Amino acid sequence: MANFELDPKIAADSLLVCRLKPFELRLVNDARWPWLLVVPIRAGVEEWHDLTEPEADALSDLIRRLSINLKALTAAEKINVAALGNIVRQFHLHIVARRTEDANWPGPVWGFGKPLPYSNEASEALIRAILEGMELG
Amino acid sequence: MANFELDPKIAADSLLVCRLKPFELRLVNDARWPWLLVVPIRAGVEEWHDLTEPEADALSDLIRRLSINLKALTAAEKINVAALGNIVRQFHLHIVARRTEDANWPGPVWGFGKPLPYSNEASEALIRAILEGMELG
Repeated sequence: MANFELDPKIAADSLLVCRLKPFELRLVNDARWPWLLVVPIRAGVEEWHDLTEPEADALSDLIRRLSINLKALTAAEKINVAALGNIVRQFHLHIVARRTEDANWPGPVWGFGKPLPYSNEASEALIRAILEGMELG
Repeated sequence: MANFELDPKIAADSLLVCRLKPFELRLVNDARWPWLLVVPIRAGVEEWHDLTEPEADALSDLIRRLSINLKALTAAEKINVAALGNIVRQFHLHIVARRTEDANWPGPVWGFGKPLPYSNEASEALIRAILEGMELG
């Protein structure tokens, strides 16, 4: 069995928040919208149905927790949850906090404009707030 | 408690496939991409975390079954799974079969161009195939 390696594009475009086995939680480095990625720490997962049943159950639970947390933290209007993977095939679930004044509301975030990287201070503060909101901080 | 009513935009843009309690399964009337919607048959659900735990478990199971079925049926390159709801707030999960030659590959389907309605024959044949693939036909 192949070892897990994070896709290089995901690695370049996002920052590690924490590992919540069986997943790695990452923050997309784009200050336009608070945007998390959930990546299974296992090689060979592309489709939702490639997840094992325990992984799918853990994902369902994590979506609930992250969605509640991110919505409260950012006073978001709506949480967007999606697993697309047309470009990067390694399974990664997007959880994005959307605000009515954000850059492309109510359109989707994917493929829209250019990412606006966080300052180190801003990404660290957001990661800390997410961990505290999940009671992991 | 309010009674369930299907959002009028969802009702206008999609066709009933079947009810798989606690969900209604619908086919988006857009022949550009095989596109299903899963709608909880309950008023007041907007966010993923508004689902009860049994509903979330049933949704996780249904995603797996529909994803496998739709991928096999359409020889899709990738299945896209998403709950956005920025425009229509009633919770609806999208399950879309994507092909490398489709109208907006690898970009998202939302907000792209104009829907191309199915003929009655074509939507009926696809609905029948989906039901048979799910062993419901």
